[in-house]
Amino acid sequence: MEETLDLARSHHADHPQLPLALRLIENTGVRTRHIVQPIEETLKHPGFEARNKLYEREAKARVPAVIQRALDDAELLTTDIDVIIYVSCTGFMMPSLTAWLINEMAFDSTTRQIPIAQLGCAAGGAAINRAHDFCTAYPDANALIVACEFCSLCYQPTDLGVGSLLSNGLFGDGIAAAVVRGTGGTGVRLERNGSYLIPKTEDWIAYDVRETGFHFLLDKRVPTTMEPLAPALQDLAGMHEWDASDMDFYVIHAGGPRILDDLSKFLKVEPHAFRFSRSTLTEYGNIASAVVLDALRRLFDEGAPEDGARGLLAGFGPGITAEMSLGSWQNGGRS
Amino acid sequence: MEETLDLARSHHADHPQLPLALRLIENTGVRTRHIVQPIEETLKHPGFEARNKLYEREAKARVPAVIQRALDDAELLTTDIDVIIYVSCTGFMMPSLTAWLINEMAFDSTTRQIPIAQLGCAAGGAAINRAHDFCTAYPDANALIVACEFCSLCYQPTDLGVGSLLSNGLFGDGIAAAVVRGTGGTGVRLERNGSYLIPKTEDWIAYDVRETGFHFLLDKRVPTTMEPLAPALQDLAGMHEWDASDMDFYVIHAGGPRILDDLSKFLKVEPHAFRFSRSTLTEYGNIASAVVLDALRRLFDEGAPEDGARGLLAGFGPGITAEMSLGSWQNGGRS
Repeated sequence: MEETLDLARSHHADHPQLPLALRLIENTGVRTRHIVQPIEETLKHPGFEARNKLYEREAKARVPAVIQRALDDAELLTTDIDVIIYVSCTGFMMPSLTAWLINEMAFDSTTRQIPIAQLGCAAGGAAINRAHDFCTAYPDANALIVACEFCSLCYQPTDLGVGSLLSNGLFGDGIAAAVVRGTGGTGVRLERNGSYLIPKTEDWIAYDVRETGFHFLLDKRVPTTMEPLAPALQDLAGMHEWDASDMDFYVIHAGGPRILDDLSKFLKVEPHAFRFSRSTLTEYGNIASAVVLDALRRLFDEGAPEDGARGLLAGFGPGITAEMSLGSWQNGGRS
Repeated sequence: MEETLDLARSHHADHPQLPLALRLIENTGVRTRHIVQPIEETLKHPGFEARNKLYEREAKARVPAVIQRALDDAELLTTDIDVIIYVSCTGFMMPSLTAWLINEMAFDSTTRQIPIAQLGCAAGGAAINRAHDFCTAYPDANALIVACEFCSLCYQPTDLGVGSLLSNGLFGDGIAAAVVRGTGGTGVRLERNGSYLIPKTEDWIAYDVRETGFHFLLDKRVPTTMEPLAPALQDLAGMHEWDASDMDFYVIHAGGPRILDDLSKFLKVEPHAFRFSRSTLTEYGNIASAVVLDALRRLFDEGAPEDGARGLLAGFGPGITAEMSLGSWQNGGRS
């Protein structure tokens, strides 16, 4: 945080809205972030091509170990996986990294690939939901979810709006992986999922795609979106005869501090309920689609909830889209 | 075709491999193509940003009518759709066009969005398969598939390899949409699907992502891929106790003429069986993920097969990935 504020002060000394930007960055509550390159390299823009090559190199260097740990935790082999859902909005490759992963890590040649690049921060929730759908269709199947986000590779030195300065102080890099087993295992047994698009907000979170790569556009109205999204979460829970305001655990996208504050207000939930998300934000920054998976990891690390404890998971991102799911904790013993 | 050959001759008069390129283009069998801009505009490169904005503008102008026709044919309203699977590899938007479509065409706010940009030509088959999975998980659901490909917006005037010259003469623009109903309707009742990645071919079909946009790389070994893919099709059919060499209809990605020739050879199927794909190729060129949906349309147009007729659908693309499905024809009467 100190380094970020110092950099903002020195890089934008003459910026008329510097005090506002500094205040917004301080308010994020982000204490530390991890980025794939040293800060001095991060602040350079070597061109879209070089950045995208860097994305590919870093993803290939870092993703397999994260996947291996998720597989080990689930006590599964690569050959037990039926579908890889790879979500990432901070680099673009065709074929997706999934093809390389299948070859490199010896997944079966028949593994399905679902690469999603255009759901941004909501893609973590979308990945969980599509994995749930897949395992609902094929109850013996296992799905691997991978979220790889190098937000620092989308830093655009020429973007000087307050939203950009805030984003520069908010987003971090992170990789996360998780396995959704068709049956067995310890974790959240997914029971119902849903999506919700807030009408007419499609330009509130967006990429401007240019020669210089992806330019992240963040409308100042975004923090107001929890007011319409809380009822969407209530509706989904209501269909399941649950109450979104009274869950045993919450795994929520930590887009920023106001997202968490407002959602706790509109859902009438104690702020402490969102502690996993807040810890992710504080320690890693907003790591886009990887947030919900990291917050979920913190739920595991805290000590498993009781068997049958009810939870709500939600990712938010461009659209503005919420990808929501409901599930109950299952302690699967050894597996 | 004549115009393409003339352009190749005049643009590349000094190219040492011009005769080879001309022969390859002639051999594609492509007679006509449709492109979103006049040819003189297509041959310019106004920059990645301008092209991507053009992609967005043309998609918004053209996609809704194609979707409306698919919905009308299926006798469904936008509000009957539970998931939109939007596949397109020739432009990049975040959020995906799905968000705009939901707002513009009044789909329910709860419609799921599955945008896929990184499966290239295989994405048409992937969309069918993910729709099938979704309707398997939720038998009352309806899925909308949209394939929007403006390959002409990926023309790169500075790419002068023979593979690029061939691609310039092969790919066309096209939009297709189809509905997969959970129950009822007339068409292919999807029964089983699968994917197959040919090991160690991930760089045979790829994008080089640069400041100038997506540069399509086509390895000359691609036409040899039908030899390993025919057994993958056989395996999938075998699991269903069907014979991939003895189906009543085939809906196959028309990547190029050799793909179709070789697959008919290695599957031991009469070339006539691939007539729908060949017509797509002849009239539209390779329209990427839209090919399989257009070939399917031609199956409908020829007159419905008999009830229960067995068919195989397959898209091929980067990875190298095959997305395959098996289904039988169902005449649903009015619906």
